Amino acid sequence: MTERLLPRIDSPADVRALPESELPRLCEELREEIISLCGQVGGHLGASLGAVELIVALHRIFHSPQDALVFDVGHQAYAHKLLTGRRERMGTLRQAGGIAPFLDPRESPHDALAAGHASTAVSAALGMLEGRRLRGRSGHVVAVLGDGALTGGLSFEGLNNAGGAHLPLVVVLNDNQMSISANVGAIPALLRTPQARAFFEGLGFTYLGPVDGHDLGALTRVLREARASTRPVVVHALTRKGRGFPPAEEDAKTRGHAMGPYEWRDGKLVRARGGQRTFSEAFAAVLEEAMARDSRVVAVTPAMLEGSALVGLKERYPERVFDVGIAEQHAVTFCAGLAAEGLRPVCVIYSTFLQRAYDQVIHDVCLPGLPVVFAVDRAGLVGADGATHQGTYDVASLRPIPGLTVMAPVAGADLPPLLSTALELPGPSLLRFPRGTLLELPEVLQPGPGPVRGARWLKRAEAPSLAFITLGPLGLAALEAAGEEPGWSVLDARFVTPLDEAAVLEAAGCGRVVVVEEGTTHGGLGSAVLELLAARGVSARVRLLGLPDTFVPHGDARVQRAELGLDAAGLGRAARALLEEGGAA
Amino acid sequence: MTERLLPRIDSPADVRALPESELPRLCEELREEIISLCGQVGGHLGASLGAVELIVALHRIFHSPQDALVFDVGHQAYAHKLLTGRRERMGTLRQAGGIAPFLDPRESPHDALAAGHASTAVSAALGMLEGRRLRGRSGHVVAVLGDGALTGGLSFEGLNNAGGAHLPLVVVLNDNQMSISANVGAIPALLRTPQARAFFEGLGFTYLGPVDGHDLGALTRVLREARASTRPVVVHALTRKGRGFPPAEEDAKTRGHAMGPYEWRDGKLVRARGGQRTFSEAFAAVLEEAMARDSRVVAVTPAMLEGSALVGLKERYPERVFDVGIAEQHAVTFCAGLAAEGLRPVCVIYSTFLQRAYDQVIHDVCLPGLPVVFAVDRAGLVGADGATHQGTYDVASLRPIPGLTVMAPVAGADLPPLLSTALELPGPSLLRFPRGTLLELPEVLQPGPGPVRGARWLKRAEAPSLAFITLGPLGLAALEAAGEEPGWSVLDARFVTPLDEAAVLEAAGCGRVVVVEEGTTHGGLGSAVLELLAARGVSARVRLLGLPDTFVPHGDARVQRAELGLDAAGLGRAARALLEEGGAA
Repeated sequence: MTERLLPRIDSPADVRALPESELPRLCEELREEIISLCGQVGGHLGASLGAVELIVALHRIFHSPQDALVFDVGHQAYAHKLLTGRRERMGTLRQAGGIAPFLDPRESPHDALAAGHASTAVSAALGMLEGRRLRGRSGHVVAVLGDGALTGGLSFEGLNNAGGAHLPLVVVLNDNQMSISANVGAIPALLRTPQARAFFEGLGFTYLGPVDGHDLGALTRVLREARASTRPVVVHALTRKGRGFPPAEEDAKTRGHAMGPYEWRDGKLVRARGGQRTFSEAFAAVLEEAMARDSRVVAVTPAMLEGSALVGLKERYPERVFDVGIAEQHAVTFCAGLAAEGLRPVCVIYSTFLQRAYDQVIHDVCLPGLPVVFAVDRAGLVGADGATHQGTYDVASLRPIPGLTVMAPVAGADLPPLLSTALELPGPSLLRFPRGTLLELPEVLQPGPGPVRGARWLKRAEAPSLAFITLGPLGLAALEAAGEEPGWSVLDARFVTPLDEAAVLEAAGCGRVVVVEEGTTHGGLGSAVLELLAARGVSARVRLLGLPDTFVPHGDARVQRAELGLDAAGLGRAARALLEEGGAA
Repeated sequence: MTERLLPRIDSPADVRALPESELPRLCEELREEIISLCGQVGGHLGASLGAVELIVALHRIFHSPQDALVFDVGHQAYAHKLLTGRRERMGTLRQAGGIAPFLDPRESPHDALAAGHASTAVSAALGMLEGRRLRGRSGHVVAVLGDGALTGGLSFEGLNNAGGAHLPLVVVLNDNQMSISANVGAIPALLRTPQARAFFEGLGFTYLGPVDGHDLGALTRVLREARASTRPVVVHALTRKGRGFPPAEEDAKTRGHAMGPYEWRDGKLVRARGGQRTFSEAFAAVLEEAMARDSRVVAVTPAMLEGSALVGLKERYPERVFDVGIAEQHAVTFCAGLAAEGLRPVCVIYSTFLQRAYDQVIHDVCLPGLPVVFAVDRAGLVGADGATHQGTYDVASLRPIPGLTVMAPVAGADLPPLLSTALELPGPSLLRFPRGTLLELPEVLQPGPGPVRGARWLKRAEAPSLAFITLGPLGLAALEAAGEEPGWSVLDARFVTPLDEAAVLEAAGCGRVVVVEEGTTHGGLGSAVLELLAARGVSARVRLLGLPDTFVPHGDARVQRAELGLDAAGLGRAARALLEEGGAA
């Protein structure tokens, strides 16, 4: 048995020092490492397996960090991490304090830019290249993006500018014909025809390819040619997501895009799986009921069929579930068009990706008052995906938009009434729910399936000394905190807009209020409460609890919640501290 | 002299009823009307003159409103307004209560969708077409967009989806080679080559053209062919912005894009022009000084060289001023790349368009903490451009983002110190200023040119009974309101983040506070003040003044400010009302 190569690779220079004949073995070892790693800790397996040869070839031809490799998203770059001095720490991937889920210059000088959202690489790389030109700094800049990221409009904006800029930007298109699931629209089909050349040439690029993205010799030849270019150049590499790991290659849906931990037992792959239902799954089921009841209801997702648990729905309603690809702006404006024709589109989108369509929500949906429902998944802490994916700003940024109703369920039982409410409104609405397993409301608090209005008392003290006002599942943490305290009430705001003013004023009547939400405290529900009290001249001691004034990194969301004081113990502490403060309300 | 045709046209049916031979005369009358109208009230002259034949041809071939004409932006559609029953009211264009600056279904059933921002038409039209298919409704859907709007990523996202959707969407590309000024990037050049066909065919469209967009016969023929298509089709029409009005045609910069009122005197065009300097002009001058001092400072604008008064700067620093076209997302991420290479990019962008890049500000700039300066123009009321363009949400949506410094000048004298401050910060910052003429600070309040920190007392009462806390130029209105009142203080917050806590607490110490800002009161500076007082357990009566919970329509911003109580008289009334309220602070 030959000695393994990987333990001897501590930097890209070590990759370049290897004889060419050993590169296939290096790729094999990288694959083994990635497969073993994802088996232990989960991660973005499929894309990283598909990009192994590409990354080795890039590090052979370009000299990072003098040459900047700008990976789009960064989820495909585990091989890059393994080759740039992070091999021994990779077991901590996506865990608190461990290796980041995507790329981050603060983690390694070989990570040219931070990312996590798609389609930013071309624009950022063009900026870097212009920056180097103006600063008189040499070095190549290479943007590496997938065909999924290519359908995002930002990529196109960047390509249009780069194609007109006459700088030697190198764009490597890692074309695996997938976004997260199968890529959609005209572009993926185009890329598999000879017209791909005309398309990129029309955008002002020299086109090199297509090249087999698993053929190291071909890749290094074409990358060498690209490096020599004095004008913008696209290298079109055809790769296979999940390559080298049969369970991923055979996964027709996503080719092992993001896999939780797994292990082999008796020759079979066994995936660790929480048996509990997620909010996403519960919402998809409720949406399916709504679609069965009302033919006007349709669903739209930007490349999140799997993440939003809409795969089954798409199978049952292929004509009424639209996966528009990685194209959040389009998803929202497309919904506006559907709603203008009398449909009731439900745009299922993660909180962090809705940021991409902020203007479209305002300008295309809310301004004309169209009845689009935004089902905002991953609202709040997201765990292992980390800082780029936290769902922090949806309430604060969208609460001020006129005519938009903003709500949140505490538990699965709230999803039917809230979706019913949303679908009966004449205008736009938003319903936010977190990543993670579904919580259960006490039987007595469960609402019926029909529309609801206003807030809901989870606990109403007879002689209240303090009230929690909560949004979403944290209501149950507040209920637990209030359990033994006869004077502590818990009001589930349920609606941020319109705020249930009477209920909030009643809650504040006791003079001590703790507002709890999983989002920023700068402009969120807590601020809405303060604004109401100020407008009515009501004096009360109010404490706002929520996400901190920093970007929350990757980690276990449950642990992070406890650390941030957003669990029952933390809420209890905050309440007692507020009660112990001197002075009148 | 023959009778004029236009007075007999009350609907598209009247256009279709005209003999073909009379159409050139109709076009001539439309041009005369548009030129006369813009001379009286100002408006989007250039684009509307360029689209006259196109709009007549569209109404000949398609039957609005059964067929939906979706105009991108809507600024080019004055001829459409004139032909759809609004002729007699056109003199009220862009004025309070009058005809809208862009299109709006609430104004006419012939306006298929509301807009004002670019690049939404393809996505919205595709949604409408899918909606009609699902509802079993017939009728064509036509998206009309300019080559400027085409470079916006949202257009591309829509085209990618439409090209793969196999529906007979008609896209009319009104190619005048301009965004607002000359269009930039690879696409405009591509459109004037035979490769345009390959580009659109690659995107899954049938390509018809190029056709002379001022040749009615050719236009109607090609639109008839497009109408018969059973699959997505692009009609590529070449037009000339400003056509038929020499002063616009000869305006090499924008071809008369947006002209204020003008008149002819002694055979010469005389443009009405406020002699006073605008905030935009003052900022451009300050930016120029910064660029002269520091070679790292560069400027980036998304197609707003004229609106942001950067034309001269671009002439003096052609390599350091980047017009990236209508591509707001790219503008911001491009800045991130520049900053990563050690430059100090200043992204000059309107508040309403920064909404387009909300995620890029968070994800690409603030998360990695890059020192990009956002110079946010048109923050607050914008006047005649109306609801789509109001700068309402920048403070509320961006205040919560960790590490972003948010500031506002009261007057021109504040621009040098605030830009100096921004450029010396290690991280990102934002500086918001309004549309309109520059205000003057009393001499004694003027700061030096160097960096500043914290808030500034515009007036500090010795025995205060009430304090205004203000943001931006409204500080001067508060100063005027406080003028005769010995007990009224005025604190210019200057920084929203980091908020000057000591100064705000001092202001609140008197127990009565009126917070004044030209932005939403849901999450803005007022909420920041309330959050601080709550965190410190400080009790005070606080009134929040700002923009209302509705979309503010077009009108005179000064009049609107008075109506909303955001002038000295209104602030005085609010202050007195707060003082007259019973109860202790």
